[in-house]
Amino acid sequence: MTSLQDLATPCALVDVARMQRNIARMQARMDALGVRFRPHVKTSKCVDVARRQRDAGARGITVSTLKEAEEFFAAGFDDILYAVGIAPNKFAQARALRERGCDLKLITDNAAAATALGRFGAAHGHRFEAWIEIDCDGHRSGIAPEGAALLEVARAIVEGGSALGGVLTHAGSSYELDTEAALQAMAEQERAGCVRAAQRLRDEGFPCPNVSVGSTPTALSAQSLQGVTEVRAGVYVFQDLVMANVGICSPADIALGVLTTVIGHQAEKGWTIVDAGWMAMSRDRGTQRQRHDYGYGQVCTATGDVIDGCLMTGANQEHGIVSCTGGAGSSVAERFPVGTQLLVRPNHACATGAQFPEYVAVQPDGTLARWPRFAGW
Amino acid sequence: MTSLQDLATPCALVDVARMQRNIARMQARMDALGVRFRPHVKTSKCVDVARRQRDAGARGITVSTLKEAEEFFAAGFDDILYAVGIAPNKFAQARALRERGCDLKLITDNAAAATALGRFGAAHGHRFEAWIEIDCDGHRSGIAPEGAALLEVARAIVEGGSALGGVLTHAGSSYELDTEAALQAMAEQERAGCVRAAQRLRDEGFPCPNVSVGSTPTALSAQSLQGVTEVRAGVYVFQDLVMANVGICSPADIALGVLTTVIGHQAEKGWTIVDAGWMAMSRDRGTQRQRHDYGYGQVCTATGDVIDGCLMTGANQEHGIVSCTGGAGSSVAERFPVGTQLLVRPNHACATGAQFPEYVAVQPDGTLARWPRFAGW
Repeated sequence: MTSLQDLATPCALVDVARMQRNIARMQARMDALGVRFRPHVKTSKCVDVARRQRDAGARGITVSTLKEAEEFFAAGFDDILYAVGIAPNKFAQARALRERGCDLKLITDNAAAATALGRFGAAHGHRFEAWIEIDCDGHRSGIAPEGAALLEVARAIVEGGSALGGVLTHAGSSYELDTEAALQAMAEQERAGCVRAAQRLRDEGFPCPNVSVGSTPTALSAQSLQGVTEVRAGVYVFQDLVMANVGICSPADIALGVLTTVIGHQAEKGWTIVDAGWMAMSRDRGTQRQRHDYGYGQVCTATGDVIDGCLMTGANQEHGIVSCTGGAGSSVAERFPVGTQLLVRPNHACATGAQFPEYVAVQPDGTLARWPRFAGW
Repeated sequence: MTSLQDLATPCALVDVARMQRNIARMQARMDALGVRFRPHVKTSKCVDVARRQRDAGARGITVSTLKEAEEFFAAGFDDILYAVGIAPNKFAQARALRERGCDLKLITDNAAAATALGRFGAAHGHRFEAWIEIDCDGHRSGIAPEGAALLEVARAIVEGGSALGGVLTHAGSSYELDTEAALQAMAEQERAGCVRAAQRLRDEGFPCPNVSVGSTPTALSAQSLQGVTEVRAGVYVFQDLVMANVGICSPADIALGVLTTVIGHQAEKGWTIVDAGWMAMSRDRGTQRQRHDYGYGQVCTATGDVIDGCLMTGANQEHGIVSCTGGAGSSVAERFPVGTQLLVRPNHACATGAQFPEYVAVQPDGTLARWPRFAGW
């Protein structure tokens, strides 16, 4: 494998130089704000990527599945926050990881899970560490900073015999914003809500050593992180078209693309048909309701230069339809003959990456490397 | 693994009894119409499923990737139609499969690919078989039945030294219909267009032994298949909510579901949070523009009984938000306590299945089996 032309398509390309710039930018920002950074590795699910985040200064990782915890622990990462509410059917696997030496932290937002965790721990002579999930924006899970349940859950953790490790929140609604002022305000809302929850716990005598916040848009927008001990973010490592629409990167920062090959045309419609459909791009249409709808992706040359006016406007399972404005008529077959390679930038890097068993890393010197990624639970 | 309660979640369950009924229904219909049936195995990518389709009477398989061809050939399937337009970067892999004994048929809709295929074959002393893709509904790829390109491509195939195996078409726009009359008309349009293209080839002296049509909605709606030699269909094996909206199955026919576990609630909003997000369900929102929008899926008990009024209305990567009408207020935590298992039926079985490395098959006697599936290209 020495050049792009040798690759089977579709495949997922990572531009390593862009990725390293994204990593350096985030780490520099966290260093300037004086907080630890715990990247969310759900975006890449790739040890080669996470090692570069660690080498740049990251401390610990965040995961979204116990499969990720298993894989990254096996690769030498031992400070792991599993940032999805724990359910009883996962206690045994979590305990097994911890007893093998993984410093795995669990989270919950309810007393039922906290109590069950304590009981399971007591029955097996094991002390878990649990953090409490805070809801800073009404987006998903968690307890409101002023919610009565906060102290109830803290008691359930501590009285059940688990260690209370801290609080965490995720301003997921930041993905819906697109102005600097709104992003800065959301970052402050995320910070203030999580710090307030920590304060309430401490006021009642509970320990709260960790105050963890984060999302890519808020992490790159926060002006102060006073009271916060660590930040989590994931998609920043690759960036994507949704993030470009949010306004915290430009399309030229996007490090992930799908390499595809032209298989035919519908010349009268101005369509070029390629061998990357939704199985390759994912069905994520995250830019659909944003300021610029990129369809299933922004079309570039194989080496990453944007082809103005070309978008993937439709996708079947293994067919992508590329439409070019200004390219109607029979000229598409001349512009993009059968066999031409194109690179399609994704709406959502987490979803597109997940469709592939590996990345092909295009290194700064132009050489290619295969970086495995994993999937499943 | 003896019961659902022992399963790690999320996982993909296949109700084998329902699947067998779907298989039997389609095969009986094809037998009655007097055509061979070549199932599209892209839906399951699972040898255990395809063997049951073959056992019921299927002849050969259809694939959407050369990876599928490799995997199914290794499992003993040797009559394989690769139903995505061939590009030059796939010639070598296709030839290697054929030289190992796989009767792999390729397709194209353009002279450029057909000519390149012939040249590659001549250079390697290999004769490929190519079928011509016909566009019966303006949906995607292919040559219109009356298009001038039809004879040009046939000449490129034959003069290039490949065998011309026939014509095929796929009425993909049938997914957008929802009345019996429209479906029957589309099935007839698909049949007539493909038969007409075959006739034009034969009139010019070209061989056209195979006339292949199909999609799940048209296959289940066709009143006559005169002139057709084989039908292809894929999603019928599992069915899904999109197909239920099209009107060719009921939700009770859907054989694929995602088993998930409750991890928390937002009681004031009537939300139950589960551990299946879009990574499990896929981002497919195929019912969004249909008569009934099921969100990210229809919510059932773990054993498959629909819970009226409950849909997965939101999905993050590993979080699903289940909203229940008539279940607002704090009662959701009582109705669905943390740890409760739910089954979510998918919008699109091909997309949801693809998120999982295996199916858990729930057999008619209630025992569970693991059926591996593969992914990638």
